[in-house]
Amino acid sequence: MGDRGAPDPEGVVDLIRAGDARTIARAITRAESGDPGVEAALRLLHRHTGKAHVVGVTGPPGSGKSTLVDKLVKTYRERGLSVGVVAVDPSSPFTGGAVLGDRIRMQGRALDEGVFIRSLATRGSLGGLSKACAETVRILDAAGYERVIIETVGVGQSEVDIVKLADSVLLVSVPGLGDDIQAIKAGVMEIGDVFVVNKADRDGADRVVREIRAMLETAWVNTGAGGRLIASGGAHHAASPSNTAAGVADEDPHAFLAKLPPVLKTVAETGEGVGALVEAVEAHRAKLVESGLLEERRKANAAAELKAALAARVLARLEAGPAGAELLRLAGELATRERDLYDALETLEGILSASGSPLAGRSGTNPGQAGD
Amino acid sequence: MGDRGAPDPEGVVDLIRAGDARTIARAITRAESGDPGVEAALRLLHRHTGKAHVVGVTGPPGSGKSTLVDKLVKTYRERGLSVGVVAVDPSSPFTGGAVLGDRIRMQGRALDEGVFIRSLATRGSLGGLSKACAETVRILDAAGYERVIIETVGVGQSEVDIVKLADSVLLVSVPGLGDDIQAIKAGVMEIGDVFVVNKADRDGADRVVREIRAMLETAWVNTGAGGRLIASGGAHHAASPSNTAAGVADEDPHAFLAKLPPVLKTVAETGEGVGALVEAVEAHRAKLVESGLLEERRKANAAAELKAALAARVLARLEAGPAGAELLRLAGELATRERDLYDALETLEGILSASGSPLAGRSGTNPGQAGD
Repeated sequence: MGDRGAPDPEGVVDLIRAGDARTIARAITRAESGDPGVEAALRLLHRHTGKAHVVGVTGPPGSGKSTLVDKLVKTYRERGLSVGVVAVDPSSPFTGGAVLGDRIRMQGRALDEGVFIRSLATRGSLGGLSKACAETVRILDAAGYERVIIETVGVGQSEVDIVKLADSVLLVSVPGLGDDIQAIKAGVMEIGDVFVVNKADRDGADRVVREIRAMLETAWVNTGAGGRLIASGGAHHAASPSNTAAGVADEDPHAFLAKLPPVLKTVAETGEGVGALVEAVEAHRAKLVESGLLEERRKANAAAELKAALAARVLARLEAGPAGAELLRLAGELATRERDLYDALETLEGILSASGSPLAGRSGTNPGQAGD
Repeated sequence: MGDRGAPDPEGVVDLIRAGDARTIARAITRAESGDPGVEAALRLLHRHTGKAHVVGVTGPPGSGKSTLVDKLVKTYRERGLSVGVVAVDPSSPFTGGAVLGDRIRMQGRALDEGVFIRSLATRGSLGGLSKACAETVRILDAAGYERVIIETVGVGQSEVDIVKLADSVLLVSVPGLGDDIQAIKAGVMEIGDVFVVNKADRDGADRVVREIRAMLETAWVNTGAGGRLIASGGAHHAASPSNTAAGVADEDPHAFLAKLPPVLKTVAETGEGVGALVEAVEAHRAKLVESGLLEERRKANAAAELKAALAARVLARLEAGPAGAELLRLAGELATRERDLYDALETLEGILSASGSPLAGRSGTNPGQAGD
């Protein structure tokens, strides 16, 4: 079952690369649902990716992200660039009217062949959403879309984790979220490459711009060399090489401050400021490419993806293997308070270690394991 | 540094068990920040936990969760039960005025010694938040709070994942989220033990109640024996024993439908229906205890916690060990499209397997690994 009329992976890849909308949509659906039949095509597709510049857009609810993305798409199209949009929607497991309304509005661009818009929903697993998003970006990239925008409709940490895997990250803020409250928490500031204050025709826009600038400057002072706020790609990955900031460490502060991420004002409803925003994104892209930081950032992101995939695989194998029963036994002892978590963890590791560590071995290739 | 005046773990545990508010608050802060110095106390504390009944409350934005939790606390207090509240706040990495306002209102109960309210914020890591939440619940449990409420202020999948680890889960809905839109997605329905339609004085409340009931009945039909919607604890954990539903599989449908989760109407602002809601939660608790399902559920939750902790530890060790360099090399080849993800994953596993699997072994106890 399932092979009736199923196209061969090479055929799927050819159709995707030719921009066939139906094949693209179907491949995304299959990737989203975790269909293992699409893996072969995704593997073949991989070598045709890496050309698109991936832009992540995130911000608090009510900041007008969807309208802004709509106008970004419009502006890119006017400049002759094709655009794919992946809306992580709704990251919230609860649905709401506004989200649906935004999506319907966005579909107004569906007749333009240079635009492909796709929503991805959480299906009960964060890891699954992140993986589906990465695969959707790759499919759109291979299909030839020159810019791929990942838009978060929801506002959880999970969406931030997804969007920070983009090449350029736009953090959208808005005036009026409350007095004396920072629109964006310090921990999230680090992932921003371009800062946008949307709905800038509202009172307080200039104050929000000043606050963000002040936070960026403070962060620069706190991190010393300030490399975290330059597009180092290493900002959010502990494993990335620390030498990405080396080139700027000995510069004078004034030259350095000029390199802080730009903070721009937009009014997405009217399109005001969106042209300048696109310029800023393209300038960030050019800087990443010229400096070699694009490669560093993508490498760090690939490491994060590889680690997540490895963890998922290790756990799946653990549960399926002989240690799965031990895990359940230890969980029972944890639940009844016979053991604490650290004790259970160490015992589980001891069992895995003593049994020749089936955790790390591929099934069938672990010579010490009989009857596995 | 750090040991000046630091109390011994036994002393900390004694103070927490005596209900000393300052020690409780400090232990939570240390657990939240990942301070390894608190681990010894948490280990000792574990055996004094398991007595509190943990209630999770989640729902879409605007459903009035915070007000409802406030009234739940009030009602429990009137019944002579002490209550701890852990607000996962803001699960969103973006702050907002409403959240702060809610918190300030809740602090009106701060003078009551029978209530302890604590907010936990996302600090850049979902795993970290989940772990901090579990540890905070344990601290409040050991401190003698008889009911511990986990309230999600945010609405992401991550918050749902956290709240479903409670003993009883309340899913809060509200009329007016939009026509023809389900207030709660089907995938989230499964985690609910008690369904609440809040702001029930609004138009459409009865329709939302009917819709939720219809969804529950449909889910019952779809899952056959319907065990998923009874408080089986196995609803959201693939690893849990499948026999938890066995006791109900041969019952007649009418008796079974009566066992579907209750759907209740409340008006949290006035307190209307909150008494009945507390009754429903307590009835669910009694059912869990009497049936033995509480133990099953806690065991499944412990297994989930153990797996998450194991995955985190495995990855940390991988990065610190000799395979960490291999991971970075493979990530580089992934980024430059020399390899695809599956290829890189298999190669990494092969390296780990061939090197005697330091992944699964504790450092210093792996005889085959020299120079580690």
